[in-house]
Amino acid sequence: MRINVVVRVVTTVVLARSWLLCIKNVSILARSVPKSLVPHGQRYRSSVSSYTPGRSASESTSRATPRFSRFAVLGLGLIGGSMLRAAGGGGVNVVGFDPDESNADAARQAGFEVAGSEAEAVRDADLVLLAMPLTQMPDALAAISAEIAPNAVVTDVGTLKAPVHELVRKYLPDSHFVGGHPLAGTEESGFAAADPMLFRSAPWALTIEFDTEITTWLRLAELICDLGAKPVPTTVAAHDAAIARVIGLPHVLAEALALTGLAGGPLGLSLAAGSYMSGSRVARTRPELVATWCDGNPSLVGALDDAIAHLTAARETLSNDGSILELAIAGHDARIDWEHREFEPVEVRDSIADLLEHGRLGGWITAILPDPRQGVRLLGMRPRK
Amino acid sequence: MRINVVVRVVTTVVLARSWLLCIKNVSILARSVPKSLVPHGQRYRSSVSSYTPGRSASESTSRATPRFSRFAVLGLGLIGGSMLRAAGGGGVNVVGFDPDESNADAARQAGFEVAGSEAEAVRDADLVLLAMPLTQMPDALAAISAEIAPNAVVTDVGTLKAPVHELVRKYLPDSHFVGGHPLAGTEESGFAAADPMLFRSAPWALTIEFDTEITTWLRLAELICDLGAKPVPTTVAAHDAAIARVIGLPHVLAEALALTGLAGGPLGLSLAAGSYMSGSRVARTRPELVATWCDGNPSLVGALDDAIAHLTAARETLSNDGSILELAIAGHDARIDWEHREFEPVEVRDSIADLLEHGRLGGWITAILPDPRQGVRLLGMRPRK
Repeated sequence: MRINVVVRVVTTVVLARSWLLCIKNVSILARSVPKSLVPHGQRYRSSVSSYTPGRSASESTSRATPRFSRFAVLGLGLIGGSMLRAAGGGGVNVVGFDPDESNADAARQAGFEVAGSEAEAVRDADLVLLAMPLTQMPDALAAISAEIAPNAVVTDVGTLKAPVHELVRKYLPDSHFVGGHPLAGTEESGFAAADPMLFRSAPWALTIEFDTEITTWLRLAELICDLGAKPVPTTVAAHDAAIARVIGLPHVLAEALALTGLAGGPLGLSLAAGSYMSGSRVARTRPELVATWCDGNPSLVGALDDAIAHLTAARETLSNDGSILELAIAGHDARIDWEHREFEPVEVRDSIADLLEHGRLGGWITAILPDPRQGVRLLGMRPRK
Repeated sequence: MRINVVVRVVTTVVLARSWLLCIKNVSILARSVPKSLVPHGQRYRSSVSSYTPGRSASESTSRATPRFSRFAVLGLGLIGGSMLRAAGGGGVNVVGFDPDESNADAARQAGFEVAGSEAEAVRDADLVLLAMPLTQMPDALAAISAEIAPNAVVTDVGTLKAPVHELVRKYLPDSHFVGGHPLAGTEESGFAAADPMLFRSAPWALTIEFDTEITTWLRLAELICDLGAKPVPTTVAAHDAAIARVIGLPHVLAEALALTGLAGGPLGLSLAAGSYMSGSRVARTRPELVATWCDGNPSLVGALDDAIAHLTAARETLSNDGSILELAIAGHDARIDWEHREFEPVEVRDSIADLLEHGRLGGWITAILPDPRQGVRLLGMRPRK
């Protein structure tokens, strides 16, 4: 038991920390936007402002989009709880709900307003965050459909966007919905693990289609910038295809590695070291979550086909006394190039086509600035070509 | 660049540290051998003694096997350099050699005797450690074959044991050879990174076949215990089969993940987070090393077949709208069970069959004790059934 606890804590802290260091540094780049990009006479606004805990709303004077006045968070686990803390700590009017009494009580004891039902929570809210597990979403949507205000903006935090969009289309066909996916999380769960800084420097996919209301999208994007995160514009399909390769696939590979290692017997398990440990790390994730991130994503089939093709080629090479050096060089270059990516500041037009192209190129929004001449200016970062 | 350096340093330090914490705790268990196992009147000897830096040879009075009198280390990179430091720091007569002048100079400047050639280094040595890359081993073996003392013990530190055994059989057919593989290492290399504590608590595979001289095996096993490491008895074939699953396979999977992620384009690379980062971590390893650890290991073909079978089944399940939950549960259990393994102290008879069975069950040797009645007593740890 002792070994396990130590390993679990160290792995969690350490991987979270290394990733944070990585994205912190990206964020340092992101903040170094040249002054020439900033409209004349307009002070460049930090991407972390009004919703930061400890700051009062009145400090934020130059918003590009209307503030939300009441924020309902449905589901007070790690992500929902962190949103409640991040937004509520900044003096915003927030209300939460969770059918799990331990999460609800923890939020109440932390001083937050917690409603007795989903319907009660969304009444009078102009922003509703769906932060419950996907399996609980149909019931929650059915419960709020009659109560939600017609002008309320609805968003979510799920790993796959297609299933959420389908559910919202079914239960809230007239809502102002934009799908969201913060790439934040730890191996902990529940309100007890909620952290208002969880989203700092995290990529946050925000879906945009050609029929999305861009004003709604921009309001959410500004909120996400306020949380210190990086809104990434993407279609539902492009998001789920990307997630198949960088979330679904690594999890399936980790499960396969853990099982193939186990099948080798106890000698191998006693010799297993760093590469087995990091390669199978995410097999520690709760299996129900892994299934939610993988099931029903057609792109994961293609990603698996690609990975299987690489492995089959390696297998053939090895069985013919060949060398996998070529694969190792290509994989090494891919990983190192990923770490070495450089980003440059860009200005993005506030059209759906331009936002989508920006996201497709790996870009995100760093700031949304009010501009008297053209309504809004979007600053972003993008990988250098 | 800054991002990369930070990520590299953090990843290295952090993964090394988490693994160390893990094996340190295993080692705490290993040292808690019940007194009843210790022969009457014999003080239980710590597994870290005479070769520990700072201790003089005279402190060690109760060895079970003869000490080596002169230790030649051929190849002064991370592993060889660490051996030189670990053994030499304890007052043992050590000599090194490395054709790479920067490693040789660094060892000289650290106060070690460095020979001008392999042949000069092995002259008068009764222990020769082959710590050069596998590709340089044929030339090195040819160079020492005429000079090495007939009674000298020879061992190595390579990741695969079959190719080394074949080379030694060819170049030094009459030598007293036992293959070794310390599961220690960092992402650094060269004598500059050498650390006398590198092997502390690391598993150290030590090959034993039915024609191995058990006295030679025990001398090396006691040396490895003295370094604070854990000698694991295994045949060449069982070792290489185990390594295929816990070193070869994780590296090939990491390369495949890095490439499949890259093929998804820049959006995915901007959304890639913890699971992609840990899953592709070892794709950062130098490709030539990865090839050395994989090429020519027939067991890796079987390990890849097993992994491909899991992935193909997952692919079929997903393409038929099924759930990968079952795979995720099995993978999760495999990984968690690995972390939760408990070990118990055992006494192992000093026969080749008993040692091999001990290793096959995932066990290692913790102490070799002199015993007037039966020559030697072997204490070990083994996973609880």
